[in-house]
Amino acid sequence: MTNANNNTHNEMANAIRFLAVDAIEQSKSGHPGMPMGMADVATVLFTQFLNYDAQAPNWADRDRFILSAGHGSMLIYSLLYLTGYPDMTLEQIKNFRQYGAITAGHPEYGHATGIEMTTGPLGQGIATSVGMALAERMHNNRFGDDLVDHYTYVIAGDGCLMEGISHEAIDMAGHLKLSKLIVLWDDNEISIDGSTNMSTSTDQLARFEASGWDATRIDGHDAAAIAKAIEAAKASDKPSLIACKTTIGYGSPNKQGTSATHGAPLGPDETAATREALNWPYPSFEIPEHILQNWRTAAAERSAAHQVWTQRFDSADAETRAAFEFSIAGDLDEQLAATVEQVKKTFSDEQPKLATRQSSQKVLDALIQASPELVSGSADLSGSNGTKTSTYRPVNAEDFGGNYIHYGVREHGMAAAMNGIALHKGYVPFSGTFLAFADYSRGAIRLGALMEQRVVHVMTHDSIGLGEDGPTHQPVEHIASLRAMPNVLVFRPGDAVEVAESWQSALSQKSTPSVMCLSRQGMRNLRNEHQSENQVAKGAYVIQDCDGERQVTIMATGSEVEIAVDAANQLAEKGIQAAVVSMPCWELFEQQTAEYQQQVLGDTPRIAVEAAARFGWDQWLRDGDEFIGMPGFGASAPAPQLYEHFGITTANIVKAAETQTN
Amino acid sequence: MTNANNNTHNEMANAIRFLAVDAIEQSKSGHPGMPMGMADVATVLFTQFLNYDAQAPNWADRDRFILSAGHGSMLIYSLLYLTGYPDMTLEQIKNFRQYGAITAGHPEYGHATGIEMTTGPLGQGIATSVGMALAERMHNNRFGDDLVDHYTYVIAGDGCLMEGISHEAIDMAGHLKLSKLIVLWDDNEISIDGSTNMSTSTDQLARFEASGWDATRIDGHDAAAIAKAIEAAKASDKPSLIACKTTIGYGSPNKQGTSATHGAPLGPDETAATREALNWPYPSFEIPEHILQNWRTAAAERSAAHQVWTQRFDSADAETRAAFEFSIAGDLDEQLAATVEQVKKTFSDEQPKLATRQSSQKVLDALIQASPELVSGSADLSGSNGTKTSTYRPVNAEDFGGNYIHYGVREHGMAAAMNGIALHKGYVPFSGTFLAFADYSRGAIRLGALMEQRVVHVMTHDSIGLGEDGPTHQPVEHIASLRAMPNVLVFRPGDAVEVAESWQSALSQKSTPSVMCLSRQGMRNLRNEHQSENQVAKGAYVIQDCDGERQVTIMATGSEVEIAVDAANQLAEKGIQAAVVSMPCWELFEQQTAEYQQQVLGDTPRIAVEAAARFGWDQWLRDGDEFIGMPGFGASAPAPQLYEHFGITTANIVKAAETQTN
Repeated sequence: MTNANNNTHNEMANAIRFLAVDAIEQSKSGHPGMPMGMADVATVLFTQFLNYDAQAPNWADRDRFILSAGHGSMLIYSLLYLTGYPDMTLEQIKNFRQYGAITAGHPEYGHATGIEMTTGPLGQGIATSVGMALAERMHNNRFGDDLVDHYTYVIAGDGCLMEGISHEAIDMAGHLKLSKLIVLWDDNEISIDGSTNMSTSTDQLARFEASGWDATRIDGHDAAAIAKAIEAAKASDKPSLIACKTTIGYGSPNKQGTSATHGAPLGPDETAATREALNWPYPSFEIPEHILQNWRTAAAERSAAHQVWTQRFDSADAETRAAFEFSIAGDLDEQLAATVEQVKKTFSDEQPKLATRQSSQKVLDALIQASPELVSGSADLSGSNGTKTSTYRPVNAEDFGGNYIHYGVREHGMAAAMNGIALHKGYVPFSGTFLAFADYSRGAIRLGALMEQRVVHVMTHDSIGLGEDGPTHQPVEHIASLRAMPNVLVFRPGDAVEVAESWQSALSQKSTPSVMCLSRQGMRNLRNEHQSENQVAKGAYVIQDCDGERQVTIMATGSEVEIAVDAANQLAEKGIQAAVVSMPCWELFEQQTAEYQQQVLGDTPRIAVEAAARFGWDQWLRDGDEFIGMPGFGASAPAPQLYEHFGITTANIVKAAETQTN
Repeated sequence: MTNANNNTHNEMANAIRFLAVDAIEQSKSGHPGMPMGMADVATVLFTQFLNYDAQAPNWADRDRFILSAGHGSMLIYSLLYLTGYPDMTLEQIKNFRQYGAITAGHPEYGHATGIEMTTGPLGQGIATSVGMALAERMHNNRFGDDLVDHYTYVIAGDGCLMEGISHEAIDMAGHLKLSKLIVLWDDNEISIDGSTNMSTSTDQLARFEASGWDATRIDGHDAAAIAKAIEAAKASDKPSLIACKTTIGYGSPNKQGTSATHGAPLGPDETAATREALNWPYPSFEIPEHILQNWRTAAAERSAAHQVWTQRFDSADAETRAAFEFSIAGDLDEQLAATVEQVKKTFSDEQPKLATRQSSQKVLDALIQASPELVSGSADLSGSNGTKTSTYRPVNAEDFGGNYIHYGVREHGMAAAMNGIALHKGYVPFSGTFLAFADYSRGAIRLGALMEQRVVHVMTHDSIGLGEDGPTHQPVEHIASLRAMPNVLVFRPGDAVEVAESWQSALSQKSTPSVMCLSRQGMRNLRNEHQSENQVAKGAYVIQDCDGERQVTIMATGSEVEIAVDAANQLAEKGIQAAVVSMPCWELFEQQTAEYQQQVLGDTPRIAVEAAARFGWDQWLRDGDEFIGMPGFGASAPAPQLYEHFGITTANIVKAAETQTN
């Protein structure tokens, strides 16, 4: 690099630094250390490597850039402004961290264009990017290099690499040989508490190499070295880690290299001193024209690949173009409707006695044949979760043409990777584990909800009905804890037909993740007369009405609906009129009119039945109403014995109804 | 090893195998593959290395044995029977996985003696054992080699090493140079879905070495090699991984080496074939006398260390003995009472305006000086969480005499390590992270609740009150999701005095973990007249009564209590009598009498205020009552603006009360 080039580079990098410093100073809140430290790396990446088009931020074949160390959000906001994304105005930068600004404290997906995902909870970025890089390879397998051929770049911090999810991510990426995934680690040896040597001594290069990555260490302030390392990483047949040795808060004469720069403004004096030290005599928020011009010119050059891609796309045949666009749009409603209608008919006709995980498998058998966009998987419970369909073809490093991902025993990494697949577009991911292990993946489930991504978490073995595996494996509070989460649909279907309808509802929701709670144990079919209308879509409905005037309402979900129906039948024999309400999805029921809700729940006494904690059920219960469920943790024993022991029985429902109607 | 020795070893190992095979066959459920594969390793460990006393299972200086791969529970049950733990009878083995048996599907802490922790959720065992091994070193530092000097052995499976938590655990153990931690990895290359090469290709030895471990690979069916490897591991100055190359389902001629043996009984035919193959002509559940005798003799030899220890203990001075026993018993009530009384007085006198994370720090300053048993820490948020006290002394590989653990950015590993510290005994652990990251540690929080361990999770930044960091960092549903969990006390104190009382309540609960939800933002003190009685211990109470007859009740927790008090004061000026109920701990309130609950909540209209999801609040609300809180995810902005935006304001409470009392 010549001196002139070097000077240009430094000015461009300093533009990032001072936008960050000034915005954080103005908002009196934020994290300057990381943008200042990684400005050189980011400058090289955005001017020499990353293919993007600021004027067409959603160009499908763009390289992806993920700021896993999301607290350094001013790095990406600065970049988006300097490279000319139209919505990232200087006004937005000045309103950093203020209400309504697109420049939130951490990068929020959907706020500013060019933000590929929400980051902040550490480790999520690197794990989600594995899903993006995997989706790229799968999409490439389907549509070829002409339409799909891009890189995924990640900036990760020390914290990202300490989080457990990073292990799941790098093991998965190494195994799948995701060679177009390149992680730039901000190797500054500083975390919030101080030097990282207070809490870790892992040799990260050796660790990544052990998982099948290429790994190298460079001076993160040497533009030439950065470029050379990225070149090498692009050429590698493995995913690559580039440890960028940087100084946190680079340029701050009195604070750089310390955790003081991590999460607080530099303060006016130190900001002035930094201007001096970096030879940046310009006022706050002012980027000199020639520097801005250099950035805009570089950005224009980086967008050249978009033009070339568009030519290739335009010369593809119409069918390919349509299929490509369909996969990106991901609107499966028509396919869903036809398939679900057929499957429901079969269930109503054949009335199978199946665990809902098994009827789910039958639904998926049909759906996945109809939609090449669906991609299944499991965290090493393929047989148990019913996610392995008859068209099973595993995705692996030798064949990205499959429809099934063996995620390994990695629930958190799996959920994050699914977020990445959904964000990348081209595929609609679902995959399975046991409901009790929703606890492991909760961080990623929440981020998917916040990012409004359509991801379906199949969670089987959804109660004490799993029996002998005992309390560690028996979810009790998990359904409640997921219902508590904003923007998640929690389905717990009561028979095979409801399973089919739940899948239709889940996959037709384009901006909400779903959790499918499915039983291990067999259940008889209850909806034995075919209805085209999706009842589950209403969230709750009267699944079995009474003959005369209603005296009591029995509400239940999942495997307890059949117990409720049995109780209602016994009550009918005793002359007590009980209506049974199946409530497979509370969130959808909440969206119905008050009239409909009232009509379903009625005015008579209510009994709620769910083999789970009561927590949350009081939303539907009034004084004097009853709940029959779990008082605490479960136990290890055959399932029927556990239902008996915990009193979740037809007899107890009948007894409660008799007391209530007495 | 001579042939005779070899034969004896094989018979002893086969005794484990057939107890496992027969019990699983009888219960028609269970996991034979692991006990069959690891029987040789377990036999060597329990006959030649592990120091334990079956007749005194709680001997403080015993070596710890953790079956991280908990599905192989019949391995430990067989060992406990063969080595003569009195409660592990043949009858219990025959009742494997039946209701009421101590031989649950997965090993449950508190069921059978000799089970050091509950395992099953993969990775928890290895992560918890890090806490045990750390507590051992700390206790050793305090009481010396004579009283504390034992090893922690772990059997882990492929799944344990795939889980992200394993990374947090091994990074922490390597950093702390926990050289007395020895992990025996059942390296059988089989997971549930099939060969592990379907989902992972990490070189585990290289991975562990990268984190500062010794690592070696041996033939897990060669008794001499196993013994040699354990010898070497004991001599190492690093934690050790021994990869034991085994055949899953060893001895089953048609199923060994396949996932068919993992999670299902062998079946009668294959069981017979296995008897033939391993030359085991004995009927089900029958262990020939000479083999049982060999086991019992070996166990007696292994208990010799207990006798020697007892002599050493008896010759220690009285003060040391008392301090040692006090630390193991961990009854801090007296110290707590005195300290908390003092701190509360100071708060009531000085009426500080502090965030509850700050008043918590003041409480901890006092508590930790009074109790050398308390050990603090944080997942790299020491300054933010208020867990770093004035007596701060970090624990590290060079000094285990500290009282503060820098857990690193590892929330899940931290929570599991705290479980291990509590299970080990000698210390009472607490540590901090942000409440939003409770999602990351949830798996370990739940296991602590199930094992009934006193562990305090300090969770600060407990609402939108954290402001600019935005929705990724703002807990909304987390309080609800923790309240839903059985056997957890969720505290959300409303002022400094309540903070002190919450700590007293949490630490005096010996069989329940607690979560301390604390604010980032400042709050004024509300309890300005000193009361000795712990009000928080009742869960909820009238913190500010009205002058005349109550017309409305305003219920609130944490930082919203002061908003409720302000509203009540404004209402009083308008002539409306509002009582304010602080509800710092729902679970403790549920334990009060119906009369007390009624007296506190009253009969008048209720308004609940919490800057969180409504989910769960309907337990305390009736038709027509109001909830003021969060409708969904938060946003990035200064905290006061967010409270305003989401309508969690005095004005809105006043308005609601006026409407209700109109």
